Amino acid sequence: MRILVLGGDGYLGWPTALHLSAAGHDVAIADNFARRGYDEELGATSLVSIAPLDERVRVWQEISNRRITSFVGDLTDAAFTTSLIDEVRPETIVHFAEQRSAPYSMIDQPHAVYTQVNNVVGTLNVLYAIADIDPTIHLVKLGSMGEYGTPNIDIEEGWLEVTHKGRTDTVLYPKRPGSFYHLSKVHDSHNIEFACRAWNLRATDLNQGIVYGQETDLTKLDPALATRFDYDAVFGTVLNRLIVQAVCGHPLTVYGSGHQIRGMLDIRDTVECIRIAAENPAGPGEFRVFNQFTEQFSVLQMAEMIRDAYSGTVHIAQIENPRVEAAEHYYNAVHSRLMDLGLEPHNLSDTLINSLFSITESNKEHVDPGLFDPSVRWKATSSSVGPHPVEATAA
Amino acid sequence: MRILVLGGDGYLGWPTALHLSAAGHDVAIADNFARRGYDEELGATSLVSIAPLDERVRVWQEISNRRITSFVGDLTDAAFTTSLIDEVRPETIVHFAEQRSAPYSMIDQPHAVYTQVNNVVGTLNVLYAIADIDPTIHLVKLGSMGEYGTPNIDIEEGWLEVTHKGRTDTVLYPKRPGSFYHLSKVHDSHNIEFACRAWNLRATDLNQGIVYGQETDLTKLDPALATRFDYDAVFGTVLNRLIVQAVCGHPLTVYGSGHQIRGMLDIRDTVECIRIAAENPAGPGEFRVFNQFTEQFSVLQMAEMIRDAYSGTVHIAQIENPRVEAAEHYYNAVHSRLMDLGLEPHNLSDTLINSLFSITESNKEHVDPGLFDPSVRWKATSSSVGPHPVEATAA
Repeated sequence: MRILVLGGDGYLGWPTALHLSAAGHDVAIADNFARRGYDEELGATSLVSIAPLDERVRVWQEISNRRITSFVGDLTDAAFTTSLIDEVRPETIVHFAEQRSAPYSMIDQPHAVYTQVNNVVGTLNVLYAIADIDPTIHLVKLGSMGEYGTPNIDIEEGWLEVTHKGRTDTVLYPKRPGSFYHLSKVHDSHNIEFACRAWNLRATDLNQGIVYGQETDLTKLDPALATRFDYDAVFGTVLNRLIVQAVCGHPLTVYGSGHQIRGMLDIRDTVECIRIAAENPAGPGEFRVFNQFTEQFSVLQMAEMIRDAYSGTVHIAQIENPRVEAAEHYYNAVHSRLMDLGLEPHNLSDTLINSLFSITESNKEHVDPGLFDPSVRWKATSSSVGPHPVEATAA
Repeated sequence: MRILVLGGDGYLGWPTALHLSAAGHDVAIADNFARRGYDEELGATSLVSIAPLDERVRVWQEISNRRITSFVGDLTDAAFTTSLIDEVRPETIVHFAEQRSAPYSMIDQPHAVYTQVNNVVGTLNVLYAIADIDPTIHLVKLGSMGEYGTPNIDIEEGWLEVTHKGRTDTVLYPKRPGSFYHLSKVHDSHNIEFACRAWNLRATDLNQGIVYGQETDLTKLDPALATRFDYDAVFGTVLNRLIVQAVCGHPLTVYGSGHQIRGMLDIRDTVECIRIAAENPAGPGEFRVFNQFTEQFSVLQMAEMIRDAYSGTVHIAQIENPRVEAAEHYYNAVHSRLMDLGLEPHNLSDTLINSLFSITESNKEHVDPGLFDPSVRWKATSSSVGPHPVEATAA
C-alpha cells in the first residue's frame, strides 16, 4: 500500500518508515526538520549521531533496494500539505509530524502557542487535504496516553459507555491532560473525530505510551539508519534518560514520589503497531482509537529495574517534581485492540535494558550530564531552558 | 470592581459593558473590530446601524456620567494582551473576543484555521498574562452550549460524575460539537481547566445558548448605544433571522426537520448572567462551568411561535440542512447554577417577539433577503459565501 509518513525524519517516524518499507509498502516521507532544529535551540543532541535524511534514504535504498521518497515542508503551510498529498496520493497517512515534548510546550508562552498552533493547524490542514483530494485515505494519527491524565476510573480506548440518570450513551473518553503539548493532541482528537463525522473520513487515533529503546532490526543495519537517542530532560523519554544516568554514574533522577504510573512500550512495538493500524484501516466515517502501549510501570519501578540490571553501583534520587501531576493515583488503562489485531509485545526485559546500556557505553564520552536536570517548571510561566542545578535528595 | 471586557465592541460585549458600567463597576473594553471586518468580507451588515466605538463610549459618558475606557488591539498579539492587562489591572476579565460563528468557521480551510488559531491563541495569551500579572484575576469566558453536541444523556454543567467498572470519578463533561468554531471553544475549555490546575487560576466557563433579542434597557437609551442585529445565515442567530423573514413576508426557513433542540436566552439575560458570574467569582484554582440559557426549544417550535405571534401571513419552509447535525435527538440540559445565584430569566414571550417585529419594521428597507439562505455547507470543504439560491420546499 502507498503510505505517507509525516514527520518521517523523527525519533519514531524514521524507524516506522523503514519498517513499513521493509514490509513491502510504498513509502514516502515528509518532514520540516523541526526536531533537528530543537536540538540547536536547546543545545542538546541525540546521543547516537544521526545521518541527514538524504543519506538515510540513500543507504536504505542500497541495503534494501527499496526507495523511500522524501519531501521537505511544513504542514502548517496548507499549500504544501495539499500539494504533497495530491502528489503522493497515499492510501494511508501516518502522522507523527508534531512537536512532541511536554516540557518544551511548557517553557513559556511562545512555546505553548507554537506547540498548539503547529500541531492543531498541521492536523487541520491534513484533514482538509484528505477531504478535498481523497476522503478514502486512512489517517493514522499519533496521539498520547498522556491525553487521558490520571482519572480515578479505568481508561478505555477512546470511547466510554456512560449511564447517567437512567439513560446511556457512548461518549468520547473525557480527557484531562497535564501540559499544553498533551492538550494539543486532545484538540487534534476532537477535530479529527468531527472530520470523520462531517466528511466521512476514516481515522485511527493512536494514544501512545512512553516509548523506550533506540534500535529496531532495521535501524541496526547501518549507522546511517540509526534513529535518535535523547536523554535530556526536555525531549528524552524517561527510561532512556535513566539508562544514561546509570551508565554515567549519575543518580537516577525520579520526579517526586516516582509513584506516577505510565503506559510504556518498546520502540520495536511502536513500528509494528503502526503497520498493524495501517494494514487494518478504520471504516468510512469511523474515528477509531487504540491505546498503544504494552505494560504499565511507575517511574520508581523503572528506576529500580535499571538499578538491578546494571553491573555498577546505582543510586536513585527523588527530586522535586517540576510538573503538575498527581503523585499518588489510580491507573488502569485498557490496551487490547492492537493485541487483538496481532501485536506481539516486547516486554521490558533485561535484554532490552542491556542493549541500551551498551549503546550508551559506546557513546558515553558524548553525554552532557547538564542535560539530565529538569529545566522547565510547570508552576512557572517562563522557565530558563538549559542546564542548571536542581536540589536532589538521595532516596 | 474593575472589569475588562474583551470583545467589548461586539453584539453581546457592548451591552455587557454598559450593563456592568451601570451596575457600578469600573469597566474597560478591548476590541480589534474583527466583527465589523466580517461585515465587509461577507457583504452583510447589522440591520440596526451601530455607532463607532468612540461614539458609543462618548454618548454613554454623556448619559451616565460613567467612563468606559477602550483599547484597540488583537489578543493573538501577546505583547498587546500582556500590556493591556498590566495597564488595566482588572479583578475580572470577561472574554467575548472570539470568532463566534459556526458557519463562518466552516467556509473553507482558511476560515477554519483562522477561527481556531484566533480563539485558542487569544485565550492562551490571556491565560499567560493573568498567570504572569495577577493570578487572582477571575476569568469569565464565553463558551457555547453547542460544545456539548447532542448526547443521549442529560447535559450537566461542565462536569459529570461517572461510575465505571465499580469505580467513580468526576470528569470533564465529554463534548462532541458540530463545527470548527464550537471545537475552538472545546479547546479553550480544556486549556483553561489546565491553567486553573497548573497555575491556580480561577475561571468561569459560560456555556451560552443561542441568544435572541437586540435591546437591553441601556442600549435603548440612545441610537448610539444600539448593538448589532444580524439576520444573515452566517452571523445571525436563528430566532433573529426568523423574525426578519416574517416581517419581510419571506418563508421562515428551518433547516431540515427543525426538530433540533437548542438552549436559548434573551440578550437581557446574557448581560445579567455575566454580572452575576463576575460578582460571584470562582475560587482559586477552580474551573467552574455554568450552562447559560433559560429555555430549550426546537427550531420548528420557534418558527411556529413567530408565525402565531405575527399579524401577517407567515409560511414555514423546511430547507435542506446545510449543517451536519442530528435531525432527531434527545436533549435535556441542566442550567440551574446561574439561577441559584439569582438570575431571573426573561422567558421568550410575545412581548419580546413583538419588540423584535417593531425593530425590524422600522429598518425593513435595509433588509437584504439574499442573506437569509445558507451559503456554507458542512459537507463541502469550500463553500461560496454570499447569496445564492437554495432549494426550498414548503412545509
